[in-house]
Amino acid sequence: MSNQKSQEIRLKHRPIGMPKPDDFELAETAVPTPGEGQVLVRNSFMSVDPYMRGRMTDRASYVPPFQIGEALSGGAVGQVVASNNPKFKVGDHVNNFSGWREWFVTNGGELTKIETVPGIGLQAYLGALGMPGLTAYAGLLKVGELKEGERVFVSAASGAVGAIVCQIAKNKGCYVVGSAGSDEKCDWLVKTARCDKAINYKTEKNLDAAVRAAFPEGIDVYFENVGGEHLNAALGNMRMHGRIPVCGMIAQYNATELPPGPANIIAVIPMRIMIKGFIVSDYGSMTPQFISDMVGWTKASKMKWHETIYDGIERAPEAFIGLFKGDNFGKMLVRVGPDNAV
Amino acid sequence: MSNQKSQEIRLKHRPIGMPKPDDFELAETAVPTPGEGQVLVRNSFMSVDPYMRGRMTDRASYVPPFQIGEALSGGAVGQVVASNNPKFKVGDHVNNFSGWREWFVTNGGELTKIETVPGIGLQAYLGALGMPGLTAYAGLLKVGELKEGERVFVSAASGAVGAIVCQIAKNKGCYVVGSAGSDEKCDWLVKTARCDKAINYKTEKNLDAAVRAAFPEGIDVYFENVGGEHLNAALGNMRMHGRIPVCGMIAQYNATELPPGPANIIAVIPMRIMIKGFIVSDYGSMTPQFISDMVGWTKASKMKWHETIYDGIERAPEAFIGLFKGDNFGKMLVRVGPDNAV
Repeated sequence: MSNQKSQEIRLKHRPIGMPKPDDFELAETAVPTPGEGQVLVRNSFMSVDPYMRGRMTDRASYVPPFQIGEALSGGAVGQVVASNNPKFKVGDHVNNFSGWREWFVTNGGELTKIETVPGIGLQAYLGALGMPGLTAYAGLLKVGELKEGERVFVSAASGAVGAIVCQIAKNKGCYVVGSAGSDEKCDWLVKTARCDKAINYKTEKNLDAAVRAAFPEGIDVYFENVGGEHLNAALGNMRMHGRIPVCGMIAQYNATELPPGPANIIAVIPMRIMIKGFIVSDYGSMTPQFISDMVGWTKASKMKWHETIYDGIERAPEAFIGLFKGDNFGKMLVRVGPDNAV
Repeated sequence: MSNQKSQEIRLKHRPIGMPKPDDFELAETAVPTPGEGQVLVRNSFMSVDPYMRGRMTDRASYVPPFQIGEALSGGAVGQVVASNNPKFKVGDHVNNFSGWREWFVTNGGELTKIETVPGIGLQAYLGALGMPGLTAYAGLLKVGELKEGERVFVSAASGAVGAIVCQIAKNKGCYVVGSAGSDEKCDWLVKTARCDKAINYKTEKNLDAAVRAAFPEGIDVYFENVGGEHLNAALGNMRMHGRIPVCGMIAQYNATELPPGPANIIAVIPMRIMIKGFIVSDYGSMTPQFISDMVGWTKASKMKWHETIYDGIERAPEAFIGLFKGDNFGKMLVRVGPDNAV
């Protein structure tokens, strides 16, 4: 194995505004050899996620910034191909944080074993059954305190998080409206994700009016993925004691100047609205219940998802940049190796 | 008594932007005679509050709009001068919602008896021991979930609500910085309200930098009274798991167009910030504990307040308009009759 190469994507420049392909570079190293207590992993899929944009900027945040000239990192799934660690055996499938590369060694601390379920692909553990799914589950049920039968508005509704939010809410007997950026995505939201309505925000001239028309009785929970105009339209149409869990504001991630905030913010007072930002890693303890519910719903055909898969690690920058253009339909993934390497 | 007149202030026009004296008119009626089960009250003080601006606009909100040509209403304290209701006797001091007039009759449903405390004036039940005080108490301790020793930023800090917020926080061992609009108010905040620092927002060129300098370790609770630039500066300087109880946004009440919202809103995500609007009337059940704590602190010289009192009901519009210019120092009140009418 020592002659084999491992490809990885490194950060070449810190992007200004929208990232460009030239901000990244493809490099290769020798496949490393696991030392004492270590495990060698061959990645199968890596995830690209909007939050990674923040790590490309050199500022303190909840995760440290990526370093120029070093391989990026992020969620990935792969297989153990050599192990000097009694906790992992060759053939184990593992979730890890060493994406953006094909091979890596680790002492195992970052690995979580995946108990695969027949009919659910390995890559689902980066999407519906992974971090984006838990973001939806914890954000809606815990942060958003969703109650059965409430009225739920979801932005970026066909995305990796939003699509799961819509279906959890439907499974809880809610009225659900999602917003997405194409008619194809809107069709999927209504026909497959069972949304009551879908709003194509790219063709709607007046988003506020469209939200008002879709929610004549107002919104109990707005699941915020987008920021900007969506937040403003939601704020103006909330019901009493409404909640706005905020997991992302993708509209702002590439802004070189901060865009204006929600002019409607004053609505929080009469309507007693709660806006609450959250980070999925704070909700790791919900994982067992989350996996159990999601597998149950999936087997009952009450949880479906779309994936957009780019083939080859060299396409990872393109996949990442595509997130901000809405090129993905559901979870955006990059295949960086076979499901089974051993 | 039937020959006596009762003066009242009526809404003449709905204000556009900043209210003008001509939007109001002074009128008089005969002093009414209490019918069966009714009580006649002579008001001593009436309150003017920023939230009343919202009721002058014809839109649905948490309280219905005032009607043109009718007397305004709001918090007042007065004395029972005649009673056909066994629950109230002549001489009782009562809190009521029939301000902006000298006399009124009621079946008693809106009245709360005041147990006066030696050394605390009747008008305090419209301020520190009334609705603004409870707003501070419930907003800081319940909505803001204040913990001992935290770092607290208060806007409109010398106002009726803010001054109480500052001192409750000090009584809970917190580090407290208030912002106010004059050096005199800032002096009072530090010397009398025991704030650790005060920021004069009218002379500070860069509010964000001033807030950052005052909170090198960030803010745990920002008590939001103002909106606009203050909210933005606070959002950019919050600590992890910070809370922002929002009781008012006085900077916006007279806006004819909604001003830009907080551009920093995205900070809620990495810092897990909660922004929560609230209305004091939802927290009425906290009143006994609130009064008990406030009287105890006052007797121990750990709770002080300023009042700005205009004399005569005819000055009520002037007092109300003055709220939006910062003419008040502490609670703005109008004396509309004697403390004791019987």
